[in-house]
Amino acid sequence: MTRTNYAGLIDEQYLGQTVTLDGWVQKRRDLGGLIFIDLRDREGIVQLAFSPEIDADALALAETVRSEYVIEVQGVVAKRAAGAENEQLRSGKIEVQVQHIKILATAKTTPFAIEDGVEAADDLRLKYRYLDLRRPEMQRNLRIRAKITAATHAFLDGQGFIDIETPYLAKSTPEGARDYLVPSRIYPGSFYALPQSPQLFKQLLMGAGFDRYYQVARAFRDEDLRGDRQPEFTQLDLEMSFMTQSEIMDLVNHWVANIMAQTVDYHLDIDQIPTLDWADAMARYGTDKPDLRFGMELQDLTTIMADAEFGVFANAVKNGGQVKAIVVPGGAAAYSRKDIDKLAKYVERFGAKGLSWLKVDEAGVKGPIAKFLTAKTDDLLAKTKAKDGDLILFAADQAPVVAATLDALRRQTAHDLDLIDQSKWAFAWIVNWPLFEYQPDEKRWIAAHHPFTMPNEEDLPLLATPDGAHKAHAQSYDLVLNGYELGSGSIRIHRMDIQEKMLAALGFTPEAAQKAFGFLLEGMEYGFPPMGGIALGLDRLAMLLAGRDNIRDVIAFPKNSKATEPMTQAPTPVSKDQVEADLGLKAPVYDDGSMPNMAEE
Amino acid sequence: MTRTNYAGLIDEQYLGQTVTLDGWVQKRRDLGGLIFIDLRDREGIVQLAFSPEIDADALALAETVRSEYVIEVQGVVAKRAAGAENEQLRSGKIEVQVQHIKILATAKTTPFAIEDGVEAADDLRLKYRYLDLRRPEMQRNLRIRAKITAATHAFLDGQGFIDIETPYLAKSTPEGARDYLVPSRIYPGSFYALPQSPQLFKQLLMGAGFDRYYQVARAFRDEDLRGDRQPEFTQLDLEMSFMTQSEIMDLVNHWVANIMAQTVDYHLDIDQIPTLDWADAMARYGTDKPDLRFGMELQDLTTIMADAEFGVFANAVKNGGQVKAIVVPGGAAAYSRKDIDKLAKYVERFGAKGLSWLKVDEAGVKGPIAKFLTAKTDDLLAKTKAKDGDLILFAADQAPVVAATLDALRRQTAHDLDLIDQSKWAFAWIVNWPLFEYQPDEKRWIAAHHPFTMPNEEDLPLLATPDGAHKAHAQSYDLVLNGYELGSGSIRIHRMDIQEKMLAALGFTPEAAQKAFGFLLEGMEYGFPPMGGIALGLDRLAMLLAGRDNIRDVIAFPKNSKATEPMTQAPTPVSKDQVEADLGLKAPVYDDGSMPNMAEE
Repeated sequence: MTRTNYAGLIDEQYLGQTVTLDGWVQKRRDLGGLIFIDLRDREGIVQLAFSPEIDADALALAETVRSEYVIEVQGVVAKRAAGAENEQLRSGKIEVQVQHIKILATAKTTPFAIEDGVEAADDLRLKYRYLDLRRPEMQRNLRIRAKITAATHAFLDGQGFIDIETPYLAKSTPEGARDYLVPSRIYPGSFYALPQSPQLFKQLLMGAGFDRYYQVARAFRDEDLRGDRQPEFTQLDLEMSFMTQSEIMDLVNHWVANIMAQTVDYHLDIDQIPTLDWADAMARYGTDKPDLRFGMELQDLTTIMADAEFGVFANAVKNGGQVKAIVVPGGAAAYSRKDIDKLAKYVERFGAKGLSWLKVDEAGVKGPIAKFLTAKTDDLLAKTKAKDGDLILFAADQAPVVAATLDALRRQTAHDLDLIDQSKWAFAWIVNWPLFEYQPDEKRWIAAHHPFTMPNEEDLPLLATPDGAHKAHAQSYDLVLNGYELGSGSIRIHRMDIQEKMLAALGFTPEAAQKAFGFLLEGMEYGFPPMGGIALGLDRLAMLLAGRDNIRDVIAFPKNSKATEPMTQAPTPVSKDQVEADLGLKAPVYDDGSMPNMAEE
Repeated sequence: MTRTNYAGLIDEQYLGQTVTLDGWVQKRRDLGGLIFIDLRDREGIVQLAFSPEIDADALALAETVRSEYVIEVQGVVAKRAAGAENEQLRSGKIEVQVQHIKILATAKTTPFAIEDGVEAADDLRLKYRYLDLRRPEMQRNLRIRAKITAATHAFLDGQGFIDIETPYLAKSTPEGARDYLVPSRIYPGSFYALPQSPQLFKQLLMGAGFDRYYQVARAFRDEDLRGDRQPEFTQLDLEMSFMTQSEIMDLVNHWVANIMAQTVDYHLDIDQIPTLDWADAMARYGTDKPDLRFGMELQDLTTIMADAEFGVFANAVKNGGQVKAIVVPGGAAAYSRKDIDKLAKYVERFGAKGLSWLKVDEAGVKGPIAKFLTAKTDDLLAKTKAKDGDLILFAADQAPVVAATLDALRRQTAHDLDLIDQSKWAFAWIVNWPLFEYQPDEKRWIAAHHPFTMPNEEDLPLLATPDGAHKAHAQSYDLVLNGYELGSGSIRIHRMDIQEKMLAALGFTPEAAQKAFGFLLEGMEYGFPPMGGIALGLDRLAMLLAGRDNIRDVIAFPKNSKATEPMTQAPTPVSKDQVEADLGLKAPVYDDGSMPNMAEE
């Protein structure tokens, strides 16, 4: 027998036809001499009916079948008995009356149910990932992901982009996150690095004249993991020559609109996508990836509060800081003093020392700091437009702390009060970024994007000195969706003199620059074209379009938070021969053939 | 200015139009007050004309321009002067009379010419890969490769295949080639392995019910390199559930026909693709990947020569070996005794001890061994159908030596005498493989394909004992093109009991089997469907379709024969901190910031 149809796609149009189906037993119900089986395949479920009248042998075999058995059946599509219809299912009006059944594989009882919304521990889901992936929501997640890549291939091929693969065994370079290393067997003590992005290779491909490149590329970073980070992740990676920033943004808009149409059937009006200056986004939202599905913008009260009686505010301004606030609509009743204490505790991680607040009522404002701000109340309410019943949350500190604090409070309170329209897709471009940012922990300047980002033309003279360079702005553009950074792009440096100055401003000596990026600098001496590009995070995009909040749900075999894979138990110790004889390295432990796997612990 | 057209696509239909072009200077010719520049972009070349009449400033700037400068020009498309046409070029009847020129990047003299057929050392080409890739033939190679993947995405999406990414940080497993290892930072002494193929993951995806999976997947093998091997390579990887071998072969035929049509505009008649039994291919061609563009099949003379006067032949038969021969048409005149000595030397590597031969003339046969075969000459000529002027080359030894020797001689002599129709695309399927093959070097049985290959149904009882299992044949199928293995596929084992027997026959103890493949064996207990698939080597397919004989020509940034990348010099030593503090390993050398790069040596 050969399958004729997917089970989940059988409906009334097949009435009277004989079909052959393959799939998994979702459920078996015995009704005294009658058996019904819900047969599941990737397209959905169909009801199978077994009875002595249809076929006694098939009925007998059906009695032995249990959940998750793999079976093949042949039967006739018939109407269900009146009253037995299931409006939820495409196949809900019919059943397949089975004349032949074959058991292709038996199954033990699964450790969790094969159904949506299952409550299983993350590591259990990962250990039995092949069962977890049988659940309809996981099937849907990965198919949305595949639709994104299919739409990307079709769209970019149509736009003349050439799909070119770049190496995964690459060179370890400084800058950026920690590399995953791969020991060389031929040169013991030498290592390849798994690339953190195809950045340099795609610039070289533009130097090679391919004009338009793209790749669905894996990238690797050996960093500590969070919900939206994995050791390996996937970029939709583009680069093009001879195009300006606005031309590239326009092409990306069309690409993303195409993806939205084909995956979630959403018409994205690209003329309505706002473009915000980085400084503007930071001022209004406290973040470079603002969630524009709701308002609650940051209000700058620095001028008003410079001479406030309330010392926390006045001193912040005196010390060169800011006083800013957000207004939480209806927040006065929603947040008790205890709730606000929790918010205060929450924002400590962003450097906030305490959380000042006021509740607005008909009479004005109230709260512990109200008495220090009586002289400012009118200005405050006029500026913030806070109304009766609102909660005002303040941050008074240096600008980065104020921004991080109010960004977090804005998102948290909007979430708490359900102020976010979950049906919205709020895209935005963030442009005109600083070229550098200061890393207080490391006490050094790093590239805000990466060291190959082109400064604004008018800022080129600033690169004459490192101090000047640190004030420059960049031809870079990030695409944001619903508060997530979807992608990060820039015009690249294509001239050696500019690239050398950029590396100098990052603290590279000429020797260090040559050692790390000599091949790129040399390439630029042979005629590199102006170029720019972008990389979109596929995992994050798929997560958002699938309506999930963890990228693990859109990756077939992700790592857990310890960067291990509970199903195969990777990573594992390997033999002494592999490490010492083959690679010339020494490891603290070896797999002697009996040692338990470390990843099991 | 914004580019309006690709230079290489301008032709008479643009006459009179103003165009803006970006590209590289291929060549500049100064003709006393007139300058012509050949401007190159990825689509080809157009002639730019500069003169005082067109624009004096543009002419002045054009005088400063040298080869490989990147320029932008604006001008009017005009007819070339009579007699100045170039029939070779699409743009050969026109020129662009340039009114504005802008130099976007200057260029030093390149280490080799940017033109087809350049004679540069391999490592020089790789060191300046961005220049090598500017050459039209390399542009074409990578675009053919991109067309193959584009056609694959479109075709398989249309057939309901789901593009699913599998991990590159995977588990090290025994069997197969040497793994590339990636040290874990969180578990010092543990390693991930870069996968040699997504084999197990795709089987698990079938267990998860995705039904049809594909991926353009990178694979990694730390083996010594040859012309058609790279440390990382790309597979077009498919897996599907509930399909038989012939159904899968049929789908692959359609897929390959689609690729052939879209990349080399060739209509592949899939009904004409022969299917050969493995044993038949070995008997007739001495190889499991026969080049069917020409005949010269192996002739079995074992029976005839069993009692030959010539001891070499008779003894080979007596010792359980074979006597076989190929007939080289017209080889008698083409090969001198000295030439044949060279062939004899060549086949020593296949274990051949000497090379017996005869030349056929009107009178019969001649050559050093003719006198020992007078009694056999009639039978020999009748069996081999050798004709006047042909050369007969013999091999008399154990079957594997005979096969390898005559396969090599068949291909070499056909090549020498130009007997291969280079315009042919000779596909073939090789089926009914042995399940195991004996590895004389390691004195053990290994899987002919891999340990997950399903035996023929009728051979299942043989698996009861390892000795029996070694006689079984497999449901596997290789696709061959012009003597290259393009892809290797099989029906997989989906039942734990069969898989356990297979691993036992490979010498795994139950404990070792659990340790290496426990997750797969356990998965099979939860209802895995019957499944099968195939992996096609993209690099090799692209190489063949591009008409090249080295896969490096269809890889953007390949490694050289020492597995290093001469442009970036990967692999390199890294810092002591990265190896010892981060990973808990010890390396023989570190990058102390001044040490020369080992890969440079």
